[in-house]
Amino acid sequence: MTHEAQLAELKLRLREISDLRGAEAVLGWDQATYMPPGGAEARGRQLALLSRLGHERLVEPAIGRLLDALAPWAEAQGADSDAAALVRVTRRDFDRATRVPSAFIQRLSEHTAASYHAWERARPANDFAAMRPLLEKTVELSRELAAFYTGYANPYDALIDLAEDGMTVATVRALFTELRAGLVPLIAAIRARPETDDRCLAGDFPEPAQQAFGEQAIRAFGYDYTRGRQDKTAHPFMTKLGRGDVRITTRYRTDNLSDGLFSTLHEAGHAMYEQGIDDGLDGTPLFTGTTSGVHESQSRLWENLVGRSLPFWRHWYAPLQAAFPGVLDDVDVNAFYRAINKVRPSLIRTEADEVTYNLHVMLRFDLELALLEGTLKVADLPEAWRARVQSDLGVSPPDDRDGALQDVHWYGGIVGGAFQSYTLGNIMSAQFFAAARRDLGDLDGQIGAGRYAPLRAWLTDRIYRHGRKFTAPEIVQRATGQPLSITPYLAYLNTKYGALYGL
Amino acid sequence: MTHEAQLAELKLRLREISDLRGAEAVLGWDQATYMPPGGAEARGRQLALLSRLGHERLVEPAIGRLLDALAPWAEAQGADSDAAALVRVTRRDFDRATRVPSAFIQRLSEHTAASYHAWERARPANDFAAMRPLLEKTVELSRELAAFYTGYANPYDALIDLAEDGMTVATVRALFTELRAGLVPLIAAIRARPETDDRCLAGDFPEPAQQAFGEQAIRAFGYDYTRGRQDKTAHPFMTKLGRGDVRITTRYRTDNLSDGLFSTLHEAGHAMYEQGIDDGLDGTPLFTGTTSGVHESQSRLWENLVGRSLPFWRHWYAPLQAAFPGVLDDVDVNAFYRAINKVRPSLIRTEADEVTYNLHVMLRFDLELALLEGTLKVADLPEAWRARVQSDLGVSPPDDRDGALQDVHWYGGIVGGAFQSYTLGNIMSAQFFAAARRDLGDLDGQIGAGRYAPLRAWLTDRIYRHGRKFTAPEIVQRATGQPLSITPYLAYLNTKYGALYGL
Repeated sequence: MTHEAQLAELKLRLREISDLRGAEAVLGWDQATYMPPGGAEARGRQLALLSRLGHERLVEPAIGRLLDALAPWAEAQGADSDAAALVRVTRRDFDRATRVPSAFIQRLSEHTAASYHAWERARPANDFAAMRPLLEKTVELSRELAAFYTGYANPYDALIDLAEDGMTVATVRALFTELRAGLVPLIAAIRARPETDDRCLAGDFPEPAQQAFGEQAIRAFGYDYTRGRQDKTAHPFMTKLGRGDVRITTRYRTDNLSDGLFSTLHEAGHAMYEQGIDDGLDGTPLFTGTTSGVHESQSRLWENLVGRSLPFWRHWYAPLQAAFPGVLDDVDVNAFYRAINKVRPSLIRTEADEVTYNLHVMLRFDLELALLEGTLKVADLPEAWRARVQSDLGVSPPDDRDGALQDVHWYGGIVGGAFQSYTLGNIMSAQFFAAARRDLGDLDGQIGAGRYAPLRAWLTDRIYRHGRKFTAPEIVQRATGQPLSITPYLAYLNTKYGALYGL
Repeated sequence: MTHEAQLAELKLRLREISDLRGAEAVLGWDQATYMPPGGAEARGRQLALLSRLGHERLVEPAIGRLLDALAPWAEAQGADSDAAALVRVTRRDFDRATRVPSAFIQRLSEHTAASYHAWERARPANDFAAMRPLLEKTVELSRELAAFYTGYANPYDALIDLAEDGMTVATVRALFTELRAGLVPLIAAIRARPETDDRCLAGDFPEPAQQAFGEQAIRAFGYDYTRGRQDKTAHPFMTKLGRGDVRITTRYRTDNLSDGLFSTLHEAGHAMYEQGIDDGLDGTPLFTGTTSGVHESQSRLWENLVGRSLPFWRHWYAPLQAAFPGVLDDVDVNAFYRAINKVRPSLIRTEADEVTYNLHVMLRFDLELALLEGTLKVADLPEAWRARVQSDLGVSPPDDRDGALQDVHWYGGIVGGAFQSYTLGNIMSAQFFAAARRDLGDLDGQIGAGRYAPLRAWLTDRIYRHGRKFTAPEIVQRATGQPLSITPYLAYLNTKYGALYGL
């Protein structure tokens, strides 16, 4: 067989896996949006079947043989070539998938399903005791999972690496320590200033007007509705059902404008990344965003660096006022801008402002590592959480509902590897944005004029089109000319919030 | 292996096939309802893949071996037992699936996809010439398909048998000839009477009110929204995505009440059948309606025998008037009842009234048999169509758009085997309804009081719960105590339309 024929054979197999995953995404999307309650049981089975069929096809020895045969040839095309990236990334997925025995996967997914269902009841009931044995088991399984992967300095590097190809506990810890040192004095300075008045965000905001305004904004960003759509779900998400079909979901609160609006901008950022990947990568593992952190950098960039900026609102505030007649008449754009950027230490990660958000992430990162390393017992988690929230944020969770039971991640998945990507995304978003500003000239002027095409073209060229061809560190280096650094992010926060709070 | 273990093994395999088909149904539903245009290409591939995976699993030799091993044991459970029916029906599906080479299936489905796309353009363009070579090829492929099945008196019996297990060209022809003899004088008598005034059905009927009214009616029928939902599509349909998830779709015209209302009742009839199947049959080929004809009998029963009856409207007419304030104020229930039952020979099958509808079906049945038998050339089809419409209905299609190009069936599938089921459904609907009336006493009184539970319970007991355990002739015999007969249907039409037209 020629290398071309081997590549074609590999792509044929990968295409089938990709189509199975696309089908799985359709079923998952429907499950979250429109499925009637009676459909749950059959849907769970259908999803598990498609997932198994995809996994079976990925771990077939023929894939390993094709990768072996293709590797030298592909590498010779140049490390940046599609062929080299395809073989490299598929090898990574193949090794990961074959490393973990399917009996373990079965055991893990049965346990996480049970744990998730228990958590759905335990969280509203504030019943950490009910979750304790389940979480202990999850920690154990997470350790077992990490142990299947070898060659890491820290065994939990494996869990981080699953989400953030190329990142380690050590690199994340170093970044977080540095970031923390910059955030703490900024938060202290803000807390010494008078509290921002954000009452204008609470009011009567009819859902259809919120939906229409959000759609108008993300259409202007460049989210393509001929290749996507937006629906409502309990928890907003973005999902790719296939090439040309990248959907987002949002939820609305009629008594609060922020939730629906910023989650729309956020998910649109994820979606534009997926919509911007080179079509030539379709049907391969390269046809998706590269890591959770880089994905989050794009949602955060459009949500925060664009969507919570003063230039953005100089353009959109009049349309917003018109969308909700009477509600915002007495509020000027500067007051509105201050309100949507109010900094206030709080209990809930997903509701936190840009500045304090990262402290929520860091506490989760530290606590999950302590759980994995055995220096923290699950039984002691609620108290450790409370103490850390108190010391970091100066507020105290009245219960575990808004404490250790708050996020689904540990209860519906594994412990370790998920949270760091949120803050990595924030850090990268600022570095990308600073580089775009350097290259595009008057970026604020463009945003102030409602012109996002130059920014989106820059992001597409530097990030989106490459899909998974490069790792997060590579993408950062290529897009910005610098290694990953917290400097642009701290500069962004200090400048923006310094001005907002007169520091 | 014990027979119990063999049965369990068979069921495990069938469950997986059923889950693949459920997943396929989810993708198909989404394709028709919410999929953005950009998703079409990937969706086509995903659907083809799931269909292929389901087919591959069905034709596995292990299934044949399990069926062989189980047959005597299952038959010993009694012909009516679930085990016997399971082995019998799975054998039928297995034999059909293995009889046709997969290369032929591939060729057929590529051709029908191409033909369907061409028809989508050719019909609006009234361009039969463009379809001629494609339809000639379809006729050829339909003959080839029929030839794979052996043991039939007429080779085209195979095509009818695919949709109507147990029916043949001879039995259908005999029924149709008899029915035609009854319909022709009835239609002639009606045409001699003054035309019904149905202008009240054209007006301004806002979509949300149509949706709400339709939903109220089918909830009253017993369509279970916790195990289903209703959405909008270009062409209404019912689909089963899994146990507990049976959905319907409808379309609305704001200038005409009939279309949305009666298609809602029609699809709800299909859906209640699927919702009423015994859960114990889930995951097997028995867990669906038995034949197209019996399915159609249920949609027609709820749409026509209930939904176009005077007792139904005695109950629902006031709510309907209230749903469209001002529009129907000057129309009394009798005038409305006459309008929705207006008989008028027309060009379009799907818009035809109850009486003339069957003539549309019969002309298609006769023409497609002539095409298959070679007594009619595809080139001569448009003229043959026009002549038959003129002689049967006394109207003349101005073009092929509303003539030989009208229905999708021949252009997106095979020629033969589809149309007869519509009229068989009509015939059976009246036979079932008459038997229910005999058993339930004052059925009109119940319907007039908005009480459908007795009727639905009767249908569930006699028809729905059995799924595919029995063939159409068996179901008719079991449910009504009589073999299939046109007598109840002609009696129904003569009584109803005799009264309406003062014959």
